[in-house]
Amino acid sequence: VRALVFQDGLQFRTDYPLPRPGYNEALIRVLVAGICGTDLEVIRGYMTFHGVPGHEFVGVVEECGEEGLQGKRVVGEINLGCGVCAYCLKRMRNHCPNRSVLGILNKDGAFADYLTLPVRNLRPVPETVTEEEAVFVEPLAAAFEIIQQVSIRPQDRVCVLGDGRLGLLVGLVLSLTGCSLSVVGKHETKLAILEKRRIPVFMQSNFAEKEFDIVVDCTGSGSGFETARQLVRPRGTLVLKSTVAQRNGVDLNSLVIDEITVVGSRCGDFGSALRALNEGTVDVTPMISRSFPLEEGIKAFDYAASPGVLKVILKML
Amino acid sequence: VRALVFQDGLQFRTDYPLPRPGYNEALIRVLVAGICGTDLEVIRGYMTFHGVPGHEFVGVVEECGEEGLQGKRVVGEINLGCGVCAYCLKRMRNHCPNRSVLGILNKDGAFADYLTLPVRNLRPVPETVTEEEAVFVEPLAAAFEIIQQVSIRPQDRVCVLGDGRLGLLVGLVLSLTGCSLSVVGKHETKLAILEKRRIPVFMQSNFAEKEFDIVVDCTGSGSGFETARQLVRPRGTLVLKSTVAQRNGVDLNSLVIDEITVVGSRCGDFGSALRALNEGTVDVTPMISRSFPLEEGIKAFDYAASPGVLKVILKML
Repeated sequence: VRALVFQDGLQFRTDYPLPRPGYNEALIRVLVAGICGTDLEVIRGYMTFHGVPGHEFVGVVEECGEEGLQGKRVVGEINLGCGVCAYCLKRMRNHCPNRSVLGILNKDGAFADYLTLPVRNLRPVPETVTEEEAVFVEPLAAAFEIIQQVSIRPQDRVCVLGDGRLGLLVGLVLSLTGCSLSVVGKHETKLAILEKRRIPVFMQSNFAEKEFDIVVDCTGSGSGFETARQLVRPRGTLVLKSTVAQRNGVDLNSLVIDEITVVGSRCGDFGSALRALNEGTVDVTPMISRSFPLEEGIKAFDYAASPGVLKVILKML
Repeated sequence: VRALVFQDGLQFRTDYPLPRPGYNEALIRVLVAGICGTDLEVIRGYMTFHGVPGHEFVGVVEECGEEGLQGKRVVGEINLGCGVCAYCLKRMRNHCPNRSVLGILNKDGAFADYLTLPVRNLRPVPETVTEEEAVFVEPLAAAFEIIQQVSIRPQDRVCVLGDGRLGLLVGLVLSLTGCSLSVVGKHETKLAILEKRRIPVFMQSNFAEKEFDIVVDCTGSGSGFETARQLVRPRGTLVLKSTVAQRNGVDLNSLVIDEITVVGSRCGDFGSALRALNEGTVDVTPMISRSFPLEEGIKAFDYAASPGVLKVILKML
């Protein structure tokens, strides 16, 4: 089958073996897949992953032990827990110490004609939600994870730092809480997506120090933590959303003096993201920059890495 | 009056001016005062403080606008807020951006015959509580601040790192929650104080990685954060209790991946500490290493800085 394979560089291959479903797994034909920042990191060596990258996808179930899912359009949670450790038993499979992760860690991913995933990872896509929308479920769930972890109330002053793919989704989700939201970014065209939703956006942070109750760092840059630290008030909360290769010096003493809470935040449950797309409370379509056929996957990766580009989608047909 | 004064080194003086109470302040004759780690930092230049250090004290109210406090034994909250900013109005005076702090920032402290404090900072000491006990109220309140900020439940596995003055108080307080507690230190004599209370203590951390729900760093050392990070489980909480001059490199990415919450924790409200001493739920007396008269203050500071020493108390009479 066709696949983008990362092994001494990224290659497009047409002779990749068809994956065989493991115990309790389904075989899924991929319809569309999204390229995200983590994928760009993976082909730079992150997680020393080798194989097929890609973890944002919509597919059709071709083989499956569960009748109800056969032929259905699905998305899939990307963490595969062992199923028997304390974390898996507590429904914290995302933190299973023996987990593999679709397209990121020990598991071939979505930039291919087919993939396999455990049946329990699959979520049917409601009929009203298009494939181009559903491919956002995984990063959208990561945005919803913030309000799963931190109670954000209507009177809170909240600042999102960063206008990349994740920053915009976080902005869209946090605006649902009714909080007093500000999003700070560096690209007028990206911020314009939020501006159309009447979310206050800023090209520079001219805020007073310690102005916000909650600050979310989605910058993906080494200086993001320090900027966030300056903006959050005493006893406020700083949400860390992105991993960063090189981080500037971190002043932990000021966290003690101002009694700041720092919350690390990663993947989220797909349920809330699917509901938001189904009910139309979050509109992700303005975030699609361009689609490529799978054959042009290498070109698509180059394009996704260029400045000002948001979501790039690979279409398998 | 007599005072220890820090100004080009620590000096004992007998000609220091009697402090005059400001608006809404009381004049307090100091009975006893405790030397804490912050005082040792102050005479090394921390906060570039000049004047009389000392912020743990018990005294008698000599002049006061409020009849009821006249002649009473009191302890005093050490943060002096401006009274009119958003933090002061929200009862978060400890975080007032214009605050002064007794013996630490722009306010003469307790290593003297007299000090002044706003009446609203004063708390009467119950008759059953001795002066040697009450001098622990300030650091004990800092220990109670942890359970004010973080819900610690009986089933939680909790680890306290550090067996200094603060680490022991935190151990004593957290044991009250009924949690499964372990305290890791480096001094057998210090840990013995907790061992007598049947609190499990360890000279080395031989725990499995990510074993604890909650880890409290009271080490005051550069490597404490990293050790704590290794011991806390995914989605667990790391409480940062001490400020550290030089910190080792901090890996914030692992906070994101394991979704750790880091909580900075500083001063606490005196009420719970006074209740604990009054009801005898916390026994601080084994932590007193030695008392000195005020005249021998410089010797007392040297002694407090030597290894294995816990609380050193200055007596004014």
